[in-house]
Amino acid sequence: MSELLKGKEVADAINKRSIETVNELKEKGITPALAIFRVGNKESDLSYERGAEKRCEEVGVKVVKYVFDEDVEIEDFYDKLLDANNDPTIHGILVFRPLPKRFDDELLRNSINPYKDVDGCSDLSLAGLFTNKKTGFAPCTAQAAVEILDHYGIEVSGKNVVIIGRSLVIGKPLSMLLLNRNATITICHRKTVDTPLIASKADILVCAAGEPEMVNKNYTNPHQIIVDVGINWNVEKQKICGDVLFDEVEPLVKAITPVPGGVGSVTTSVMVSHVVEACKRGY
Amino acid sequence: MSELLKGKEVADAINKRSIETVNELKEKGITPALAIFRVGNKESDLSYERGAEKRCEEVGVKVVKYVFDEDVEIEDFYDKLLDANNDPTIHGILVFRPLPKRFDDELLRNSINPYKDVDGCSDLSLAGLFTNKKTGFAPCTAQAAVEILDHYGIEVSGKNVVIIGRSLVIGKPLSMLLLNRNATITICHRKTVDTPLIASKADILVCAAGEPEMVNKNYTNPHQIIVDVGINWNVEKQKICGDVLFDEVEPLVKAITPVPGGVGSVTTSVMVSHVVEACKRGY
Repeated sequence: MSELLKGKEVADAINKRSIETVNELKEKGITPALAIFRVGNKESDLSYERGAEKRCEEVGVKVVKYVFDEDVEIEDFYDKLLDANNDPTIHGILVFRPLPKRFDDELLRNSINPYKDVDGCSDLSLAGLFTNKKTGFAPCTAQAAVEILDHYGIEVSGKNVVIIGRSLVIGKPLSMLLLNRNATITICHRKTVDTPLIASKADILVCAAGEPEMVNKNYTNPHQIIVDVGINWNVEKQKICGDVLFDEVEPLVKAITPVPGGVGSVTTSVMVSHVVEACKRGY
Repeated sequence: MSELLKGKEVADAINKRSIETVNELKEKGITPALAIFRVGNKESDLSYERGAEKRCEEVGVKVVKYVFDEDVEIEDFYDKLLDANNDPTIHGILVFRPLPKRFDDELLRNSINPYKDVDGCSDLSLAGLFTNKKTGFAPCTAQAAVEILDHYGIEVSGKNVVIIGRSLVIGKPLSMLLLNRNATITICHRKTVDTPLIASKADILVCAAGEPEMVNKNYTNPHQIIVDVGINWNVEKQKICGDVLFDEVEPLVKAITPVPGGVGSVTTSVMVSHVVEACKRGY
């Protein structure tokens, strides 16, 4: 029976810190505000948006929504984005990506005011991870994984951390975040030979491959801490599952984040804390 | 007896490709040009500068030097840097860093026109490594290590690559360059527990710790390829040495780069190729 690293109490602690900062800002007459940009009505976007709005309300962050039809003119979209970039009463900007294909994703990422890039997608934010400077923000899910380790007092310095997955939103940024905290980092991916063997040597295993229930007992050891970043829909079982075959792995390791209720439940709180931090940095 | 991965023939091949591009550009009436910024007369700067000038001359790249006294006014330095940034006849800019302490290194890095940042030090260049886009350039020494592997036909895809060192100029950027080529990457550093054990499992071992002759037989295996990025002065032996204890390690591994005559002898050619590439991109 392993320790369950639940996300809720991590999120609560982050929210508590955010609320304290919001109260300090409000005393100065400042209310942190998030602008949400959404094109179309994708269910995943709407679901995240509902969560973000709820969290913002709890914390005391204002939300301004910019919602566009699927066939919005590119120019009209960017007009509004520029408005938000330049609006001193907006402190964070979240754009639901990917936008429709006619939008250039690289141009979009870098058209968001980097000081307001609370989702950590701009080149400046990514460079900040590299240089270990507080330029921009880390992508929220990568940051959420770190927050969970921190909250549960899991030391990463000198530990062998294996990350499965090398995406721009999790694998790569998380490798830099943990390297900056003195972990020894190994990044595995589709082309890696014998990932289970490598993973089974890890003190901390981060699963961010996006492969439902890929990580089974062969990836584990009894002292291991597993952070499961995967959020996948299991068609057969008709439920959300992670990258870890939970029922098999959970009894064999020291600690593990559940899915749902793990990393995913911390991400929104991280994003809102970035809005608050962006606001604080500006004043 | 291992294969010696000498830098000279790699540099020659890079120069040959650069010369071909320079000739194409010259047919259009364009001469690639590098601006070198140096403050003071540090021997290491002067030595690199001499090498760069020689290489530029061979390849057909013009060099414009901006040399300042150690006590130059910050404003005067930046005036000239801005000139070079905006001068359409300058395609690459190399600033010898670190500058005297009163210069802010982060400001400096990001004051170089990113399209001319042939040494890959600006945030935009670092972000390009992250996103695997040709934004800016990779730091020259990191790129040189990759060029050596490529030249000698050493496949990195699916291989276990261990990098010792996590600096912004080698360890971190090289990890991204090799990850983008599908290597499985492990980054070790001062806080890593049992680096020799981890290194001894590597197919390819990159030594970039800056610790003279630290890597001994305990770090190796008979199938291993070693890239020694270290350039250190051995006081006792009164000669340049790498991070590898060469005489002990060389007979035990499959292939190794010598020091001197390895990675270091490729770096300048990479830098000059970046000037040529920057020029080509602009036209």
